[in-house]
Amino acid sequence: MEHDEPMSDDDRADDGDDDRDDDRDLAATPWPTDTVGLFEGLLSTRAIRRYRDEPVPPEALRAILFAATRAPSGSNRQPFRLVVLTDGPHAAEAKRLIGDAARRTWDAKRRNDGYEQGSGVRDDSPKARMARSMQAYVDDFDRVPALVLPCFVPYRDHPSPYDGASLYPACQNLLLAARALGYGGVITQWQALVDAELRELLAIPEGVLIGGTITLGRPVGGHGPVRRRPMGELVFEESWGEAPAWAVEPPEVTHTQAGPPRPTP
Amino acid sequence: MEHDEPMSDDDRADDGDDDRDDDRDLAATPWPTDTVGLFEGLLSTRAIRRYRDEPVPPEALRAILFAATRAPSGSNRQPFRLVVLTDGPHAAEAKRLIGDAARRTWDAKRRNDGYEQGSGVRDDSPKARMARSMQAYVDDFDRVPALVLPCFVPYRDHPSPYDGASLYPACQNLLLAARALGYGGVITQWQALVDAELRELLAIPEGVLIGGTITLGRPVGGHGPVRRRPMGELVFEESWGEAPAWAVEPPEVTHTQAGPPRPTP
Repeated sequence: MEHDEPMSDDDRADDGDDDRDDDRDLAATPWPTDTVGLFEGLLSTRAIRRYRDEPVPPEALRAILFAATRAPSGSNRQPFRLVVLTDGPHAAEAKRLIGDAARRTWDAKRRNDGYEQGSGVRDDSPKARMARSMQAYVDDFDRVPALVLPCFVPYRDHPSPYDGASLYPACQNLLLAARALGYGGVITQWQALVDAELRELLAIPEGVLIGGTITLGRPVGGHGPVRRRPMGELVFEESWGEAPAWAVEPPEVTHTQAGPPRPTP
Repeated sequence: MEHDEPMSDDDRADDGDDDRDDDRDLAATPWPTDTVGLFEGLLSTRAIRRYRDEPVPPEALRAILFAATRAPSGSNRQPFRLVVLTDGPHAAEAKRLIGDAARRTWDAKRRNDGYEQGSGVRDDSPKARMARSMQAYVDDFDRVPALVLPCFVPYRDHPSPYDGASLYPACQNLLLAARALGYGGVITQWQALVDAELRELLAIPEGVLIGGTITLGRPVGGHGPVRRRPMGELVFEESWGEAPAWAVEPPEVTHTQAGPPRPTP
């Protein structure tokens, strides 16, 4: 099931800190060969929050971002822009801004949402594992190998609840493409905590929505089957609330509760 | 590049009009074997608007909808619901409602957006081909094999511009899973034209957003490389507007203009 080998060492031989020193002709570099199937990939692209301390090389960014830009959008307008931040001065400052905000927010959430109560005190509980994973993620945020801010450029007078249909498919393609190449990532909305600061730092125009915070890198650990709610709770047929007869999962599927842990009564 | 073989005839031997007659144990039916790679699939999942006149069998719906529900969402809350409409009485009425609205809208758009002017009068122009494809799509809408209405159940007091991050990744997974299984689909926002009627027909609660109209079926024609804008227009590095040095595409990539055709001056 696991095919998480990253690009070979040969492929990464030219990774310098400054990708402008890269002297190969990227246009002639073929796309990577697939080692994960399309359907399998959809079922096993986990949120990856721990990264090895190594850059995402230019040829990988190229392939991942290209796949992101191939996503569908309303009338094929492609009103999204993807701002990539790796090792430049703006990247360092953006990571610091979001990292600081994330640490403050997580600190409050950990206390308020009861991560330290009930099953949260048991080291092996899902709650405790989630809390450790989030703590490590925010602690190390300033060192994430690559940060991508997906943006939406409005083409209507007023925001529409359907705007996201022309932004988030590209984000999902991006995360899936990372998985295809042996990388991994996760999307949060932490950029919203420092929207004005990021906008000024990166010269993102007024009116453009900064719609997410995506981090990418080589996973510590691997991908694998994702844990979600049972299909029959999420899929209806003919009427709201009616689970289809065919909404049955294989016995090996494991589930999760939705949302953050409930405070223990 | 093309691997569009649908499920084998054996797999589809039990497709009846009423999938509740299906006497196999779906829980024991394995997921389909991949014939398309993950990265390749991201680059070649086209909007499919013409379908063969045959149902999407229950085992295919099961796999496609399962993959959709494996998408990420904020805090893993999964605040989306996917209403599937195939051959029941509500399905027929929903297709008729959306089909009628789409025909009226397309008729006006075709005239107002200049699809019948300029290059639109040349049979082989992209504009003319798009117009023919859309005309056939709306004409035959009431016979689409499967219709899916992706819905968002709010968990905050007010709509947020980030809500779509918990709905549209599932829609993109759905379209990619269809491609993986030899099916195809497309998402529009035509449901918005008959929102109140659909809500009443399908008992969709007040406050729940009906966020799209996805149609699915066996493609007439095939998938293949999608046509989008050049990557360098959509991807920035370090600052807004700065194309990365690595944002170079292979020479075989063909592009499209963004959005609907401009009226000819």
